[in-house]
Amino acid sequence: MKYMSKNDRPAQPVKMEGAVDVRVAKMVAEADGAPTSAMRLFESGRGGHPRGHAHDWEHVIFCVEGNGTLKSENGDADFGPGDALLVDPDEEHNFVNSGETPLRFICVVPLSGDK
Amino acid sequence: MKYMSKNDRPAQPVKMEGAVDVRVAKMVAEADGAPTSAMRLFESGRGGHPRGHAHDWEHVIFCVEGNGTLKSENGDADFGPGDALLVDPDEEHNFVNSGETPLRFICVVPLSGDK
Repeated sequence: MKYMSKNDRPAQPVKMEGAVDVRVAKMVAEADGAPTSAMRLFESGRGGHPRGHAHDWEHVIFCVEGNGTLKSENGDADFGPGDALLVDPDEEHNFVNSGETPLRFICVVPLSGDK
Repeated sequence: MKYMSKNDRPAQPVKMEGAVDVRVAKMVAEADGAPTSAMRLFESGRGGHPRGHAHDWEHVIFCVEGNGTLKSENGDADFGPGDALLVDPDEEHNFVNSGETPLRFICVVPLSGDK
């Protein structure tokens, strides 16, 4: 059993060319002993986003706070607190804070995708 | 890409002998196309809990709302909104709503553990 306090996992700026006002906190990682998946908490300000990108692993997402839009090559989806999303492997995608307040969502990936 | 609205995933009572005032909503499952992990949202009322149990898969947890206590064979951990927990495979554990308000947390498991 391992407890990860939010106070010990501060969010760090996402280092991706083109990213705007988006941060990530690594909440559960392989270094914590996770056998299968890693959990990250993304935060963005109004209008904030990473960059459109794709990779060969999926995202399993849960929105904690705020409102966002998932923009994918297969369409857009607006989401809010309590909603979930699945981004498929190799699917081009981006997340935009489309609300007026901070957006926070959990993003789970296989350990191989926790980069 | 798949969008799962909270409105389409109502919580259902946890069917486990000894469980008290605890419900689960399956937010992302194998049936949704998830390749690796499933995501469930647990909710419990004041004092609510499932039952102490163990299984050969892990839990990756994020607290969305309320306050709880993870009781494991390796010690207890109090947690609140924004905190994360890892329960190891084969570790006996239980979750108790130790606050005064509803407790809601995300629990991620490998697909094989989404029962």
